[in-house]
Amino acid sequence: MMPLDDRGLLLGDGLFETLLAQDGELVWLEAHLDRLAAGCEVLGLPPPDRAGAVQAMALALVQDGLAHGRAAVRLTLTAGPGGRGLDRPESLSPRLFATAQPAPGPPGPARLATSAVRRNAGSPASRLKTLAYLDNVLARREARDAGAEEALMLNTDGLVACAGAANLFWIADGRLFTPALDCGVLAGIARARTLAAAAAMGVETVEAHAGPPEVAAAEAVMLTNSLIGVRQVCDWNGRVYPPSLLAARLAAELWISSPGR
Amino acid sequence: MMPLDDRGLLLGDGLFETLLAQDGELVWLEAHLDRLAAGCEVLGLPPPDRAGAVQAMALALVQDGLAHGRAAVRLTLTAGPGGRGLDRPESLSPRLFATAQPAPGPPGPARLATSAVRRNAGSPASRLKTLAYLDNVLARREARDAGAEEALMLNTDGLVACAGAANLFWIADGRLFTPALDCGVLAGIARARTLAAAAAMGVETVEAHAGPPEVAAAEAVMLTNSLIGVRQVCDWNGRVYPPSLLAARLAAELWISSPGR
Repeated sequence: MMPLDDRGLLLGDGLFETLLAQDGELVWLEAHLDRLAAGCEVLGLPPPDRAGAVQAMALALVQDGLAHGRAAVRLTLTAGPGGRGLDRPESLSPRLFATAQPAPGPPGPARLATSAVRRNAGSPASRLKTLAYLDNVLARREARDAGAEEALMLNTDGLVACAGAANLFWIADGRLFTPALDCGVLAGIARARTLAAAAAMGVETVEAHAGPPEVAAAEAVMLTNSLIGVRQVCDWNGRVYPPSLLAARLAAELWISSPGR
Repeated sequence: MMPLDDRGLLLGDGLFETLLAQDGELVWLEAHLDRLAAGCEVLGLPPPDRAGAVQAMALALVQDGLAHGRAAVRLTLTAGPGGRGLDRPESLSPRLFATAQPAPGPPGPARLATSAVRRNAGSPASRLKTLAYLDNVLARREARDAGAEEALMLNTDGLVACAGAANLFWIADGRLFTPALDCGVLAGIARARTLAAAAAMGVETVEAHAGPPEVAAAEAVMLTNSLIGVRQVCDWNGRVYPPSLLAARLAAELWISSPGR
């Protein structure tokens, strides 16, 4: 239970990470903890104790009976208790907790629909996994209402940014593209792994500032995150993409390179 | 205490209102409840029972020993328990709670500093008082670090939008200006009252799409919200504004027109 004075609850003042656990092993653990610490730096929060964070996640897995098989672990850090209003108290006492749930099985290819909700390219929060995630909730809801599984979000400059809960990639002319971080994009762990895997295969990678027409003209589109790895997109607003050999290879590579998988 | 599965805590999926209570009377109550219901419509949440909301606020005032004098009451509505991830459950069970704190006394004139954090003109959430308020927290923090009390936020189109926790007004050529709602601005209750009070005084009002130079050239700048009413700005990034007679008249008018004051 969380006290009602918590700034995470009241204002979205905090961060989270979602990790895959495979038979109790936390996949890409160090990268997730590094990203959380980097987010704390941006928000001005003291970073959590790493050993304490690992312990909280391990406990959540055991308590929820998820020490075996695939589980999604969420680590949540709030700015802690606060006074009234926006200003943080002089001394911060962040709160950390972990929860675990069964992880969704490997999903089929995704249908995407463009959302009218834009990623804020003018806020550092759009490059972090913060508790203020309502824009993504609204984008996903809109996509679901349109019969799709995921939302494609443009940023406030009209450039392609990301999906509701995944990074976006596309393949064109044998090259792999993904929106640059300054488009208002989370520095996804699976995003970095995918870029590295492609480079190791000799595929040229581009962190791009691109509009919707470039994605529409692509040969293939994919989504990545820590739970699904790489997921192909089969349809975006009615534009159909056939299965891609490179996307399948990247999906397999990410799977193999994940410790514990 | 709030359960850890709450979508307000996990994702900022919810809304809040901040009301002034004067000797236990909730100022501009109906307007606040109307705005909350309108926000629920946008977010796709069932609106709370009005009688239940009033009861929760009254109870918070009594429990916190604030039934007399000035108090700030916060009413928080979350989307309730949710499964893993962005998608809401089929059936929503929103959670509502109220807290009360002593209200800050009438503040002196405010110093403003422009924040680098932009209001997202491309999200409906920027026109609502949502639990995803981190951008405003970050803007205020930046302003405090610059020695000011409040942040002036531009929107993602570079237009003047609002302060961290207040609407923005300026006076030029005897007219009263405030950013239009589609600049990514909360439809403040005190904002509407101020516009109405000025019109009743025969002052022309303009809901504007304006850049920083227009505010810099203004005769006076003011902030409004439900707790402070009207507050003059004395300094914005070093540009000094003298006290304004019209601003003082509007402050007095808002004070008088508030039931319970």
